[in-house]
Amino acid sequence: MAAPVQDAIVVFGDSLTQGGWESYGFTQRLAHDYARKLDVINRGLGGYNTEWALPVLEHILTPATERKNAPIVRILTIWFGANDSCISPSRQHISLERFSANLEQMISMVSNPESKYYSPETHILLLTPPPINTFQRGPELESRNPPRLLDREFDVTAKYAQAVRDVGSKHTLPVVDVYKALWDAVGHEEKALNKYLSDGLHLTADGYTIVYDEIMKTISQKLPKLHYDNLQQVFTPWDEVDVSNVAGSVAKRNIFK
Amino acid sequence: MAAPVQDAIVVFGDSLTQGGWESYGFTQRLAHDYARKLDVINRGLGGYNTEWALPVLEHILTPATERKNAPIVRILTIWFGANDSCISPSRQHISLERFSANLEQMISMVSNPESKYYSPETHILLLTPPPINTFQRGPELESRNPPRLLDREFDVTAKYAQAVRDVGSKHTLPVVDVYKALWDAVGHEEKALNKYLSDGLHLTADGYTIVYDEIMKTISQKLPKLHYDNLQQVFTPWDEVDVSNVAGSVAKRNIFK
Repeated sequence: MAAPVQDAIVVFGDSLTQGGWESYGFTQRLAHDYARKLDVINRGLGGYNTEWALPVLEHILTPATERKNAPIVRILTIWFGANDSCISPSRQHISLERFSANLEQMISMVSNPESKYYSPETHILLLTPPPINTFQRGPELESRNPPRLLDREFDVTAKYAQAVRDVGSKHTLPVVDVYKALWDAVGHEEKALNKYLSDGLHLTADGYTIVYDEIMKTISQKLPKLHYDNLQQVFTPWDEVDVSNVAGSVAKRNIFK
Repeated sequence: MAAPVQDAIVVFGDSLTQGGWESYGFTQRLAHDYARKLDVINRGLGGYNTEWALPVLEHILTPATERKNAPIVRILTIWFGANDSCISPSRQHISLERFSANLEQMISMVSNPESKYYSPETHILLLTPPPINTFQRGPELESRNPPRLLDREFDVTAKYAQAVRDVGSKHTLPVVDVYKALWDAVGHEEKALNKYLSDGLHLTADGYTIVYDEIMKTISQKLPKLHYDNLQQVFTPWDEVDVSNVAGSVAKRNIFK
């Protein structure tokens, strides 16, 4: 079995997180840049909203009594809203109020000292969902067999993004504002989002590049000790291996210099 | 902390493994295709040879007494030789005999019932190192400041690849023959390797594509139960969530159908 050699970044969310393993996806980029420092564990669940994801979080985290040999989660990204913001009667729809409450419950599981999943060493980053491009999403759904009606609306998704910002403010947590970064990148023109969204909902490589850059900007500003430049590799660089004491010189090291 | 929600593929090797997290690298591809089924844990150590990596393997695997909460390793790739095959007086050089013995010791740690790291559920895949392109490697080293002499030779690396095949035969282990696949792809013309090697040693995206395809071909043929198509997602697909019993329907599932 695999030993907890490296601490971890856990990314938790919907298809936008699951798709992070695509080439130029944000988890691929994180895994590359944090190689030999922190592992990236992807717990993205395509199609899930916060209501369905909440009980999954209990499987993903370890209760305090089950932590021996489990990797420490240094960063936990929580990125929902793209499905919660589906409009009724979609079964993925979750009310704005419930969405906020679910996010707050996820946060509480990790940061409330009375929670059995309490992890003071885990830093939460909240991500806002991207804006929707209904000019792409509408025709895409209509082309399906059978054709489907538009299931998300531009102004509705905007409100879910705002709810994430509000939850972040309330709990003094860093917010990676994917919505704002993409919206600013297209000069506030919905149709122009097709550079960053492949189908009006999911991200292109260019879209993920913005997500990654925003995450690293947030880590630089809010959690600089956890920036990859400020961590050392768990196992010593090859040109520092002491050939007269190999086992000693390649022993596991603390990533914090 | 992160729970052992998913079993794992552990990739162990040198810079060719570490670089697997590049876009279109083989670990990025594995992580993408095994998403929600198996995690990919990258233990690639740039510059390492088998002599330095051997004691690292003791940190990476768990002894039988430390396995609670540790993820089960279903597949372990072992991919060395690119540095062991450096020619004297390089400090990375390891003799052919010692290289084979080190590989055998790694295998024994996992597959010998008397080893404290014995893991009968772990399937080992051995990978051969790629052929060297001295027409790229030579000028690249010469252009450094100060200039360096060629540190690897085509025929020498070929022998280390053969040693991996021999160890595989001896222990009846599947060998992913990266060397042969690349060599065949260029019609046995060393100079043409520049399509697959960026600097005569490390792989391009095209090179990694061949590596990935060979790995998946080997899994299809030798370990079909572990092909991603034959595994189910740990957490149920979103359109199968039972909204009248969310917690029950999203409970962790066995990946084997």
